[in-house]
Amino acid sequence: MKRNKRERQALLTETIKENPFITDEELADKFTVSVQTIRLDRLELSIPELRERIKNVAEKNFEDEVRSLPLEEVIGEIIDMDLDNSAISILDIKKEHVFKRNQIARGHHLFAQANSLAVAVINDELALTAKANIRFTRSVLEGERVVAKAKVISIDEEKGRTLVEVTSFVNSEIVFKGDFEMYRSHA
Amino acid sequence: MKRNKRERQALLTETIKENPFITDEELADKFTVSVQTIRLDRLELSIPELRERIKNVAEKNFEDEVRSLPLEEVIGEIIDMDLDNSAISILDIKKEHVFKRNQIARGHHLFAQANSLAVAVINDELALTAKANIRFTRSVLEGERVVAKAKVISIDEEKGRTLVEVTSFVNSEIVFKGDFEMYRSHA
Repeated sequence: MKRNKRERQALLTETIKENPFITDEELADKFTVSVQTIRLDRLELSIPELRERIKNVAEKNFEDEVRSLPLEEVIGEIIDMDLDNSAISILDIKKEHVFKRNQIARGHHLFAQANSLAVAVINDELALTAKANIRFTRSVLEGERVVAKAKVISIDEEKGRTLVEVTSFVNSEIVFKGDFEMYRSHA
Repeated sequence: MKRNKRERQALLTETIKENPFITDEELADKFTVSVQTIRLDRLELSIPELRERIKNVAEKNFEDEVRSLPLEEVIGEIIDMDLDNSAISILDIKKEHVFKRNQIARGHHLFAQANSLAVAVINDELALTAKANIRFTRSVLEGERVVAKAKVISIDEEKGRTLVEVTSFVNSEIVFKGDFEMYRSHA
């Protein structure tokens, strides 16, 4: 559906607010306009380009926040963190992440992103994975960006276990889902 | 229990046959003798040292055998392969595999070893992981050697799914267990 400019710009603002990591190409597709039109819209609306938006988010220093491991040990880049509640990271799938034969991302990289996010979200100096139940729902290809969202489902103080659900997306498609049962030293 | 030399050497032969990757130190512990005694036993019995035993196994060329991925994409070293039936790989846990803070191996490395072995055991050009149910049963430390054993449990030709069970050991202790549901192009 073609929209007039005002409608489109309102929806554009809304869309980027909901998903700051959407590319201009994806926006152009979504609104059936050219990429150039999206760029002009962003200029008029003073919405920075994707690279800048990511940088803004990443500039927030999570180093002081994450307790269970040093930030550089997290696979992917953390862009949101609310300890013992939720967290988001992004991982750009590059050549080194895929099977040579078919350019499909290897499962253990998606697992590593999700698992390290499940560790990072725990508000404790010690967090280890006890169990995980995972599902790969759609192949991820080289060049795609995986956004992993972790949600703490429950904290069992007696058992010292925390349940973390991680769902990973490429754009709005779910590519991976994992339930992680995490061990922690203090609940 | 102290055994006489003949008993010990018979048991030693048996033990190494069952687990070719056992170290002289572990054997000395097991038989409550010195490492030197084990070395002499091995000399008398013409059993090569561990490094040689591993080399012998690794010299067998699995390159022609594994179909689902190039051998260099397997995490760990494959030392036994019987396509669509069973496979074994070893992974030495080094500095780059552990959390800096506590020298505990990171879960995604154990997962990567097991998962890539589950891929490699599939007798098909295309094998992808659909689901996995995994459990970390004991922390693995830097310097330890993880032996992963994969067993194909069932091949569902209609659905194109193969169930692979992977159990990983350090010495005789289970450290990881995973059930992998693999997708394949031809059953």
